[in-house]
Amino acid sequence: VNAEIVAIGSEMLTPFRSDTNSLFLTEKLNDLGVDVVFKSIVGDDRPRLVSTAKLALSRSDLVVFMGGLGPTEDDLTREAVAEALNLPLRRDPEVLAALEARFAERKFVMTPNNHKQADVITSATVLPNPKGSAPGQWIAGKYEGHDRVVILLPGPPHELKSMFLTECQERLRAKLPVRFLATRVLKVAMMGESLCDSRIAPIYTQHADVQTTILAGAGEIELHLRASGATLEDAHRRIDTLAGEIEDELDDSIFSTNGESLEQIAGYYLQMRGATVAVAESCTGGMVAERLTSVAGSSRYFVGGMVVYSNELKTKLADVPPLLIEEYGAVSREVAAALAEGVRDRCNSTIGIGITGVAGPTGGSAEKPVGLVFHAIADEDGTDVVERLFTGDRQRVRRFASQQALDMIRRKLM
Amino acid sequence: VNAEIVAIGSEMLTPFRSDTNSLFLTEKLNDLGVDVVFKSIVGDDRPRLVSTAKLALSRSDLVVFMGGLGPTEDDLTREAVAEALNLPLRRDPEVLAALEARFAERKFVMTPNNHKQADVITSATVLPNPKGSAPGQWIAGKYEGHDRVVILLPGPPHELKSMFLTECQERLRAKLPVRFLATRVLKVAMMGESLCDSRIAPIYTQHADVQTTILAGAGEIELHLRASGATLEDAHRRIDTLAGEIEDELDDSIFSTNGESLEQIAGYYLQMRGATVAVAESCTGGMVAERLTSVAGSSRYFVGGMVVYSNELKTKLADVPPLLIEEYGAVSREVAAALAEGVRDRCNSTIGIGITGVAGPTGGSAEKPVGLVFHAIADEDGTDVVERLFTGDRQRVRRFASQQALDMIRRKLM
Repeated sequence: VNAEIVAIGSEMLTPFRSDTNSLFLTEKLNDLGVDVVFKSIVGDDRPRLVSTAKLALSRSDLVVFMGGLGPTEDDLTREAVAEALNLPLRRDPEVLAALEARFAERKFVMTPNNHKQADVITSATVLPNPKGSAPGQWIAGKYEGHDRVVILLPGPPHELKSMFLTECQERLRAKLPVRFLATRVLKVAMMGESLCDSRIAPIYTQHADVQTTILAGAGEIELHLRASGATLEDAHRRIDTLAGEIEDELDDSIFSTNGESLEQIAGYYLQMRGATVAVAESCTGGMVAERLTSVAGSSRYFVGGMVVYSNELKTKLADVPPLLIEEYGAVSREVAAALAEGVRDRCNSTIGIGITGVAGPTGGSAEKPVGLVFHAIADEDGTDVVERLFTGDRQRVRRFASQQALDMIRRKLM
Repeated sequence: VNAEIVAIGSEMLTPFRSDTNSLFLTEKLNDLGVDVVFKSIVGDDRPRLVSTAKLALSRSDLVVFMGGLGPTEDDLTREAVAEALNLPLRRDPEVLAALEARFAERKFVMTPNNHKQADVITSATVLPNPKGSAPGQWIAGKYEGHDRVVILLPGPPHELKSMFLTECQERLRAKLPVRFLATRVLKVAMMGESLCDSRIAPIYTQHADVQTTILAGAGEIELHLRASGATLEDAHRRIDTLAGEIEDELDDSIFSTNGESLEQIAGYYLQMRGATVAVAESCTGGMVAERLTSVAGSSRYFVGGMVVYSNELKTKLADVPPLLIEEYGAVSREVAAALAEGVRDRCNSTIGIGITGVAGPTGGSAEKPVGLVFHAIADEDGTDVVERLFTGDRQRVRRFASQQALDMIRRKLM
């Protein structure tokens, strides 16, 4: 079964806004065994909308229209799809009453333009929208002799997502051939994309029954696995087999098999071990603390952090000996270790993290180039330092360094 | 003149990747006076590509195809556009020689599949690609009796952007009617979208000759102004007039008229006044420090930061009196002020910032609900505290609070 997604709204034809709803819909449709084969974006222009709708109906089994269901003159999706399907609109009294109740409840005056939100394509099922005013519509019928399903959804993401999940998912499942799909996401820390691929390509190419997608970011790779099967067990067995072989090969470079972020995993291990962490950051400027504390409940294991840009503060807050900075420089293995030990001591945490490096774009030298970062982790048994040379701009170097530090917490505790 | 952008590649029909190149192209095309009226995304499937190309050629003056120019079997854009235009491909000996030279220089073996990157549509101008191997193509001709310009660009963003700017912009300008456009972006801090719109709508609706777009984020609104004119001066005069009236109305809520971020502007004022800043953060967890230090050269005015989650550390690092925490609670006006004063004192900075609040999702109470944040700024003249109640999830509350703190630095120094 092939689907086409049509996003409607002139704002998505400006340089400022792009369609992101289709990523959510694609994931959910793929889970139902539906392939998305076209995406179109069209403005609030009736003739263009009608021709886009006709084209989509002529070539795709399922067509999802998103947006253009509001009360303004620019909201033309209902009218255009009705024209393309050659079906009249009717004003639905129940929908109108619900709209009136909604306005009354909020003590808003309902202006006449709002009435058109109660217009429904003949033969359509109305999809309620508890999160907004415009209802959606579901039409199953023939177009030029072919079976078609047509869905109209509101544009605001929270309305669209909620309506798809509550109103469309099961309706679609009931109409589609039964298919069983299993998916898994493996996340890999601090490995280059080509190294990762060269290690796992010999494995996944032997599993043509599983679709493998590799997505690379700064210090993080996601491996998306997807398989279908005659039964759900069969689909899961295929995924499990491939995932198991990849996990054997990449071993502890895999930090998550369940979608968690690295900061969540680091926090998970800290909590599991009853450990606490404190961080002293120079070049990352607070990014490690910010990432650790972005996780709800992190106050249980995150004690505190310091951003020590100046040498004076490295000494004053984290007790780095001035002579150490003088002898080795602020960006050095020794100062990173002293930061980790100093912050651990000051904050009385189980683990201390110290980071110092050259984020760039300036400040590099032949000996200490832009991208050079020292990461230290200290606990009661001693201190380890990892030296890395990252490439990319300031933000990318900082992101890489924060990723390395979080990964060191994970590896220390796992 | 109407344009259509066709993005080619099956990866853009997955849940993982969306087309972002079209935002760049739309901006550049708008600057040339060209409207983008359709965007399409199609996979690596020859029949679908050919029909998409024919449709685009039938309805749009300018069609830009992006992607599918590489050496693999999936790269079908050349073949499909040639078929749609009913023009044969020819293998270009100069392009082939350049490809061979490129491979030789990198000491790579050129496999036969690479040869097809030298295939050029008859009548096309070859667009060199110094950043990659696949050249682009430019075709100006007739389709079904209409004048059409067809551009083939590579998919990787840095190759596409560079090729458009060096090879396409001037070629297009030469073919298009002369139009003069001026644009301006005004950024507004810490004002709600509806309040902002209610204040400026009476102004911009009086200026129908300027297109005004309002984009809202957490604690930040962007006003995009765009006008055309008979001369460049004329276009600028229209923008200047409207921008001036909006600036009079919103006054010092506007922090940037030149695209700068709030952290850049805060840094700009700090540097201009020869001032330094240090921050003590609780609920923002390092976000203010991270944002301030994301600006290159921030070591000139950013001294240091503390992330003090526990009450113990608030006292130990920032000298907040324990009795103050006991009496007013960690989330209070008094503790925010003490944090700002304490970090200023400890770090010996001109300005101290203190933030304490409830980021959520848990930890709220009837008296101190989720979203309540106190922001303090201390200097030699004293300490100011701003109390705000933000809505949204943890990340949004933290983003709002960091925005408020940066805006307080700006207002203090401007």
